[in-house]
Amino acid sequence: MAKFKRVYMFDEDLKPVARELAKEKRLPKDLLGGKGSNLFVMTNAGLPVPPGFTVTCDTCIEYQKLGRKFPPGLEKQIMAALAKLEKKTGKKFGDKNDPLLVSVRSGARDSMPGMMDTVLNLGLNEQSVQGLIKQTKDPRFAWDAYRRFIMMYSNVVLGIDRENFERILGQVKKKEKVKDDTAVSAAGLREVALKSKALVKRRLKKPFPDDPKEQLIGAIRAVFDSWNNDRAIAYRNIHKIPHTGGTAVNVQVMVFGNTGEDSGTGVAFTRDPATGEKVLYGDYLPNAQGEDVVAGVRTPMPISELKDTQPEAFRQFVKICDMLEKHQRNMQDMEFTVEHNKLWMLQTRDGKRTAAAAVKIAVDMVDEGLLTEEEAVLLVEPDQLDQLLHPQFDAKQRPDPIASGVPASPGAAAGKIVLTAEQAVAAARKGERVVLVRHETNPDDIRGMDAAQGILTALGGKTSHAAVVARQMGKPCVAGCAALDIDYAKNKVAVNGKTIKAGDYVSIDGTAGEVMEGDVPTAPSEIIQVLEGTLKPKDAPLYKLFARFMPWADRARTMGVRTNADTPEDAHLARVLGAEGIGLTRTEHMFFGAERIRLFQQMILADTPRDRARAAAKLKPYQRKDFEGILKAMDKLPVIIRLLDPPLHEFLPREPNDQREVAKLTGKTVAEIRTLVRDLHEANPMLGHRGCRLGVTFPEIYKMQAEAIFEAACNLKKKGLRPIPEVMIPLVGIVGEFEILKKLVVQAAEDVMKRKGVKVKYMVGTMIELPRAALRASEIGALADFFSYGTNDLTQTTYGFSRDDVEGKFIPQYIEQNIIQSSPFDVIDRDGVGELVRLGTERGRAANPKLEVGICGEHGGEPKSVEFCHEVGLDYVSCSALRVPIARLAAAQAAVKEKQMSGRKSRRR
Amino acid sequence: MAKFKRVYMFDEDLKPVARELAKEKRLPKDLLGGKGSNLFVMTNAGLPVPPGFTVTCDTCIEYQKLGRKFPPGLEKQIMAALAKLEKKTGKKFGDKNDPLLVSVRSGARDSMPGMMDTVLNLGLNEQSVQGLIKQTKDPRFAWDAYRRFIMMYSNVVLGIDRENFERILGQVKKKEKVKDDTAVSAAGLREVALKSKALVKRRLKKPFPDDPKEQLIGAIRAVFDSWNNDRAIAYRNIHKIPHTGGTAVNVQVMVFGNTGEDSGTGVAFTRDPATGEKVLYGDYLPNAQGEDVVAGVRTPMPISELKDTQPEAFRQFVKICDMLEKHQRNMQDMEFTVEHNKLWMLQTRDGKRTAAAAVKIAVDMVDEGLLTEEEAVLLVEPDQLDQLLHPQFDAKQRPDPIASGVPASPGAAAGKIVLTAEQAVAAARKGERVVLVRHETNPDDIRGMDAAQGILTALGGKTSHAAVVARQMGKPCVAGCAALDIDYAKNKVAVNGKTIKAGDYVSIDGTAGEVMEGDVPTAPSEIIQVLEGTLKPKDAPLYKLFARFMPWADRARTMGVRTNADTPEDAHLARVLGAEGIGLTRTEHMFFGAERIRLFQQMILADTPRDRARAAAKLKPYQRKDFEGILKAMDKLPVIIRLLDPPLHEFLPREPNDQREVAKLTGKTVAEIRTLVRDLHEANPMLGHRGCRLGVTFPEIYKMQAEAIFEAACNLKKKGLRPIPEVMIPLVGIVGEFEILKKLVVQAAEDVMKRKGVKVKYMVGTMIELPRAALRASEIGALADFFSYGTNDLTQTTYGFSRDDVEGKFIPQYIEQNIIQSSPFDVIDRDGVGELVRLGTERGRAANPKLEVGICGEHGGEPKSVEFCHEVGLDYVSCSALRVPIARLAAAQAAVKEKQMSGRKSRRR
Repeated sequence: MAKFKRVYMFDEDLKPVARELAKEKRLPKDLLGGKGSNLFVMTNAGLPVPPGFTVTCDTCIEYQKLGRKFPPGLEKQIMAALAKLEKKTGKKFGDKNDPLLVSVRSGARDSMPGMMDTVLNLGLNEQSVQGLIKQTKDPRFAWDAYRRFIMMYSNVVLGIDRENFERILGQVKKKEKVKDDTAVSAAGLREVALKSKALVKRRLKKPFPDDPKEQLIGAIRAVFDSWNNDRAIAYRNIHKIPHTGGTAVNVQVMVFGNTGEDSGTGVAFTRDPATGEKVLYGDYLPNAQGEDVVAGVRTPMPISELKDTQPEAFRQFVKICDMLEKHQRNMQDMEFTVEHNKLWMLQTRDGKRTAAAAVKIAVDMVDEGLLTEEEAVLLVEPDQLDQLLHPQFDAKQRPDPIASGVPASPGAAAGKIVLTAEQAVAAARKGERVVLVRHETNPDDIRGMDAAQGILTALGGKTSHAAVVARQMGKPCVAGCAALDIDYAKNKVAVNGKTIKAGDYVSIDGTAGEVMEGDVPTAPSEIIQVLEGTLKPKDAPLYKLFARFMPWADRARTMGVRTNADTPEDAHLARVLGAEGIGLTRTEHMFFGAERIRLFQQMILADTPRDRARAAAKLKPYQRKDFEGILKAMDKLPVIIRLLDPPLHEFLPREPNDQREVAKLTGKTVAEIRTLVRDLHEANPMLGHRGCRLGVTFPEIYKMQAEAIFEAACNLKKKGLRPIPEVMIPLVGIVGEFEILKKLVVQAAEDVMKRKGVKVKYMVGTMIELPRAALRASEIGALADFFSYGTNDLTQTTYGFSRDDVEGKFIPQYIEQNIIQSSPFDVIDRDGVGELVRLGTERGRAANPKLEVGICGEHGGEPKSVEFCHEVGLDYVSCSALRVPIARLAAAQAAVKEKQMSGRKSRRR
Repeated sequence: MAKFKRVYMFDEDLKPVARELAKEKRLPKDLLGGKGSNLFVMTNAGLPVPPGFTVTCDTCIEYQKLGRKFPPGLEKQIMAALAKLEKKTGKKFGDKNDPLLVSVRSGARDSMPGMMDTVLNLGLNEQSVQGLIKQTKDPRFAWDAYRRFIMMYSNVVLGIDRENFERILGQVKKKEKVKDDTAVSAAGLREVALKSKALVKRRLKKPFPDDPKEQLIGAIRAVFDSWNNDRAIAYRNIHKIPHTGGTAVNVQVMVFGNTGEDSGTGVAFTRDPATGEKVLYGDYLPNAQGEDVVAGVRTPMPISELKDTQPEAFRQFVKICDMLEKHQRNMQDMEFTVEHNKLWMLQTRDGKRTAAAAVKIAVDMVDEGLLTEEEAVLLVEPDQLDQLLHPQFDAKQRPDPIASGVPASPGAAAGKIVLTAEQAVAAARKGERVVLVRHETNPDDIRGMDAAQGILTALGGKTSHAAVVARQMGKPCVAGCAALDIDYAKNKVAVNGKTIKAGDYVSIDGTAGEVMEGDVPTAPSEIIQVLEGTLKPKDAPLYKLFARFMPWADRARTMGVRTNADTPEDAHLARVLGAEGIGLTRTEHMFFGAERIRLFQQMILADTPRDRARAAAKLKPYQRKDFEGILKAMDKLPVIIRLLDPPLHEFLPREPNDQREVAKLTGKTVAEIRTLVRDLHEANPMLGHRGCRLGVTFPEIYKMQAEAIFEAACNLKKKGLRPIPEVMIPLVGIVGEFEILKKLVVQAAEDVMKRKGVKVKYMVGTMIELPRAALRASEIGALADFFSYGTNDLTQTTYGFSRDDVEGKFIPQYIEQNIIQSSPFDVIDRDGVGELVRLGTERGRAANPKLEVGICGEHGGEPKSVEFCHEVGLDYVSCSALRVPIARLAAAQAAVKEKQMSGRKSRRR
């Protein structure tokens, strides 16, 4: 860290710093935070940005490591930067004539809106407030700024609840007999300020700090601390942001949007974040400070109206938007303030957007010549595609809405209403679908929003907290639905004369902004309808964008994408969604049909190999039919079929009736059946007699399955198809297991092909899902045609975590306590499980350069894990059908990023 | 392999070969087999050895790899060696005047007595039998040799049952009206030979091979094949001999012990293999071939009697014994034949012996100046020490014997009698102790012998199959108990008028050779009695030897030995047996007392942290008392105490009565208790909410335990003792878990020490028992004071084996099918689990050079695993008290072998 300064002025030349950072594979935003680095960009581009400086993210980490102490020299560097600000502005900190006032804001690498602390108007005291009055000629404004500052600082830095100060304001309003905050007199506001200071002194037994430098140090410390407040940690957990980055602190000269009707503050996007349309989009609140917009408490006016009220500022803003988009090569989300008709840019960042908007913007920017196709691939978050593929309300069954609001985040959601985040979390734990209904949301509601199907609020616009967060989570949201009359106490909501109680069903359409009673059924998404042939492409604009965008991803990626599918229907859907084969077909589900389960039970309860073979033979026709269906659906593409994997006891008759029936079929007594069921019980079935262990001990079962596979393939081949079966032997940990069972499969293949008189291309490989298999990959790889990482089980054994037992129990606590960042079952654990994947792949390939290596655990459809698979050099990932496009895009992004990184490296050389 | 010949003559100079082998870390016996390499030694030393040659072990492996085909050129090499034999002896293969006859014997690196095939008298046909008559002037002898050869060859090489040939002999005996084989006339034996050949021709539709070269090739092939016969595989599995070594084949000129009363054959040991006494020990059978002695069918005379019957041969033999012992520096087990008063040495090898004999021989050989103390350490198999420490019959409760026999293998065993190996195996599976009673045993009984507590036979002497195998297994055996009248059909045994039915208890004393009725109680071994102070050393000769021998091991070893002990009593016993501290104290067993379990249940069923802490506080005094006891027993030595590890549900009340009681104590309803019990149930408890996961989620429990540990330590310190507690946090997989819990333990330690006003030395470390912990050892090691490998759980997770579920189920099948050589729970899996141990140790030490690394899984008391731990460089192993001497010796041997190996290497340079 020593090579970087701790404090940088916004107008410093960052190129040499960027070069140093690149050597550590870091970007400027890793050091300066997202907000900070963009302020540097705007300042350097000559945009009107209030001057300021940034204390780096690395400094925050240093501070944390020192046990929340400033590293030596930091305070001096801050003061030096402050002196430069004074020089630049000609203002003095705490001056009684022309005081310098600053904002102090957090700014981590990844945007965490509203999660960390901010202090505005810092620098005010009883002396400098007089200077502000002199400068603005507006005592009311100055005292208002001061009393706001005292409240904010006391809350954020000193830890005293806002309510205390609101109460003082309330008392003064009562005294002055006014209702609106804006109606309070200058004298009244002065009284609020002084009473507030007195309250602080009473509470803390020491006075509110009047020294602006002390204020500044306190505020910076508070921002550093806020990196580890509960809601910031929760936010990072939900969004899988590492806890190790720290936040930068941006100290910036104040500009005021609340100095009258020729002032105001706004939040805007360069394009519509809901649809992607190229129109300026956002909210403007006249005579207000920035926080007022985001809080969603007052309903703002659309930004387009600014054209009429402040034409010059609007014209300038439009120009800046254009410039910023070209410079940043992405849609921008900006905060700005107008002070007496002068526009000040306070922030710009890449804007959050819906999936549909993301795809449209990516396609449009290519069409506009702004981006190459490859660059456009990076503009859509892979996980977002989920939104495009998931169901919409079925138009035919859709009732009339009972209310409408702002269409804040698109999609269809239905569930029982809950009125608190806690209820949402509790209900979701029970597996219930819920819709969270609130006046407005705030960062404390994050977990409840995550647990809900959708969010419905009475207040706020498209840039309110609820809207921003819901879009990011891909959850439908209707905001600002004024018709809602929420009674938290009685746990019910009145809507236009109807009463909906907590627990009643409600459906919301975030695309249309509509609220409906009841549990409205959903229909497949537009894209799925086109792919399934039930909708014409010309009637599906979203599909058309999707169909232009996805081939760019496919051209960019180097890794294959397959699907996990157990039925011909799943296989078909995955194929139209771009799957290039099947990475995992589980054969066990096929045994659960009514007749089949009895045959299967007879097979596993057989006393002798001969009886077992006889029962297996009766099952073979069913299996053959299953395999024919799947191989046909994936004609010409490889299909990995996994032989029987789960412990046998899962299939056993447990109910007395079933046991009687099975007793009759097998000629045993019910008591014998009960004894067999008991004998097959296992203390830890995950680690018991399953997978290839069954294959070794009951070879008749695997033999039957192998024969069924090759009979199916030969039958199709004879009909002119080109099936490519790949037989997978599960749970291998010892090369001898694989050796014996490969021989058995190859024998079955050769026998069947000889008998049928045709040849099919096939492979025999194994799932790598035990640490020992990864460690011994060299021996196993020498014999296997392919490896497929079963990262679910590999995670279970590497961590010693039984997924069933730990996910709900202590993993959430582990995340809260910052022991892990996310469940290793959601995002692959690069450090532990990942090392085994890397090591297994290297060793396997060293022994067998032709070895095909893929992954079929659920991580195969999770973007960060897909990126890891690309880095390790796997041949493909495999995931469920609806996640296939996500995996395609994630694989493409990994490839593009790698290319960019190596390009950056080679340019450096 | 190409650098070695496939065939070596016994008199070739092997020094250059030995040098080449040493480069590959192999010994001559790895190439030539144990028997072969000793024949080379004897031949080169000028002893009277019939000439011959050896086909190497490597050739056997080549043969197996080629799918049971001779590698190209092998046959030619064999024929060339044969030609040299002809030249050396002046005899011709198949000659009608002076025919060369050879024996063809197996000889693997490790002795596998009786497991593989042998053919004697090879080279006979209807022509050469005439030559033999000419040479011996004894047609009866010649025809007997020929008919024996036909039977043996047909059985071993052609696969025709011996019974067929015995039947022909029976018919001829009937015809000649004689009872003894020796009474059959030459003509009768000729008839047997010719009829036997005719039978072979009928059975195989082709004649019995008359060409001696064809016979030789067939016999060599048969010996190669016998490497993989069932009993050889079973033997290797039991004795943990690798399946990859192959067997050599020794082709040697025949000498005949059955050419009259001036001939004979014998098996002898240079010292008494039961007691170690320095007396010539063995059996001699006049007028017999070698196999007759080992088979135990005829009862031989003691070898000492040879002095009178064949004084010259005896004198020469005694001289040779002395010479061989000096040369081999070990007690020898020899086979020899006397042919017309001329002594021929056929084999020598290091002799198997009892534990007591092994210790005595080691000590004596040092006293005789034959060995250094360090070399003597290698002369006792660590596992054997078990015999010395295990109980003996209690003299006071010992009944009079009902029969006596040969004291073939020492020790005390009691169990229900079983009359077949199958019954023994079945009963052992049910956990029953059994004594296997047989007329005599043969290699097919190996598994039954392994399953039994002891073996009792009606026939055979000290060198019979039963005796040799039992000694090797460390099981008591009484052989040749003529009073036994065994009725296999009726499943009972008559003994001197008493009838014992299968299932009745019998007790055998293999040291005294006595059989007693009933289940006689046992008493501690002599050594334990001395160590416990109940017997004076002067009355304990075995103890005196043990007490001289063990310090040599301690001086030789570099690795520490600790014990796993949960009670002060166990700790004390381990300490007198040489433990240098405790490697694992499990705290959970301490919660199972009557009052304690209720308190523990209240603790885990508490609704709030406060209630939980309150219940924990009540448990603390108990825990403190436990820890005081253990720390006191191990005063001045380190004591690792593991915090609570198993899943909570193990402690829950399951019975309705218990649930009612707990409901009363906790103020909950029975239904609530039942719900809590159900909620705590886990699908895979091994991988569930246990170990440090409990510590993270219920810190009150670990806090209480840590306080109890340090309160105990401080209390002892105040009394002038020097306790050294080391707190172990179990099941860590993520560094964050360790970080949080180490902080908790250190806090408790500092608080308690401050409160008590004394300081104790302590450590905080972790158990490495998850693959992820080993992989992340660098992070964890940086924070931990020690690692202790919990190889039981590490084996479970690395293999994905639940010990409870797989050990009885498929592991035996895996061993039979040669997928694994031994259960990875018995002998550490070097390849998989071992790699994690190695890697974890390297990474941990790299991050923290002071890291103390040990092992506390059960492997810590298993000699091969201890050797591995030494190789990896662990600081100590820890095992149960009675295995402490075993671990001390195994650690010593590993150190001595390493020293010898590096010495050998440096000498080579």
